[in-house]
Amino acid sequence: MVFKIRKAVASDCGRMMELVKELAVFEKAPDQVTVTLEHFIETGFGKNPVWYALVAFDADDSDKKIIGISLYYMRYSTWKGLRLYLEDLIVTEEFRGKGVGKKLFDATVEEARLLNVSGMMWQVLDWNQPAIDFYKKYGADVSSEWLNCSLMLKA
Amino acid sequence: MVFKIRKAVASDCGRMMELVKELAVFEKAPDQVTVTLEHFIETGFGKNPVWYALVAFDADDSDKKIIGISLYYMRYSTWKGLRLYLEDLIVTEEFRGKGVGKKLFDATVEEARLLNVSGMMWQVLDWNQPAIDFYKKYGADVSSEWLNCSLMLKA
Repeated sequence: MVFKIRKAVASDCGRMMELVKELAVFEKAPDQVTVTLEHFIETGFGKNPVWYALVAFDADDSDKKIIGISLYYMRYSTWKGLRLYLEDLIVTEEFRGKGVGKKLFDATVEEARLLNVSGMMWQVLDWNQPAIDFYKKYGADVSSEWLNCSLMLKA
Repeated sequence: MVFKIRKAVASDCGRMMELVKELAVFEKAPDQVTVTLEHFIETGFGKNPVWYALVAFDADDSDKKIIGISLYYMRYSTWKGLRLYLEDLIVTEEFRGKGVGKKLFDATVEEARLLNVSGMMWQVLDWNQPAIDFYKKYGADVSSEWLNCSLMLKA
């Protein structure tokens, strides 16, 4: 199979949300996805986009169905300046282990280089050893020193 | 002393960077601050601002010198939508323990409510127990489940 990557467009949002929900199940938190498709489309392709995405598909599939996504946005560090933050890297279950994730990750690093940012950041669950090993091959720093804090303001 | 909070303006950036550097020393990483003042001003007050800040000062000080800052920006979660991310909450050493941090934090939560986001996020160092205790009083969720990953793309 030959996998290709392209930038996401608004009409991809429905399928992208399906993958987001699939990842939530994998991360043992299926009820946590409360974003609506409407909000998802507006924030990605409305007047002021706050996120961007790459999508992967099997070039041999006549439907070119999306089988993986990389969703990212810019963040700012008072130490390092602008950085690309990879919010989600998702490959649908039946296509895992075929190099799709690596292709999406590589394309995201390339995007970060084009954007001329100081670096790229993301998070990984501490029990997801295959992902940690994958990222370490890139020379990524993986740190447990910082704790995530959150305060919900809406249900 | 009566502390007041206002929104940051471009001319605050020099003093704000001083506080950023002071925090870097406290976090045992003084050499990690590589952002220039020019980049700091441009990203906060240029054509496309990527961060926002509140500043605290002592109302009785005739110079109204900045003694603390809250620096934040918007992030996007495919689960929860838009959230305010608090990048830095800094109070200069001689004014710590007087409620300035609480006042800045409260004003930032208020800002998040005004922005109508689903929640607020930040990170805390795992050895900074006073800060962890402070955040827990707000009912914040503090989680060690996620590891921070980063890949530097520039020196």
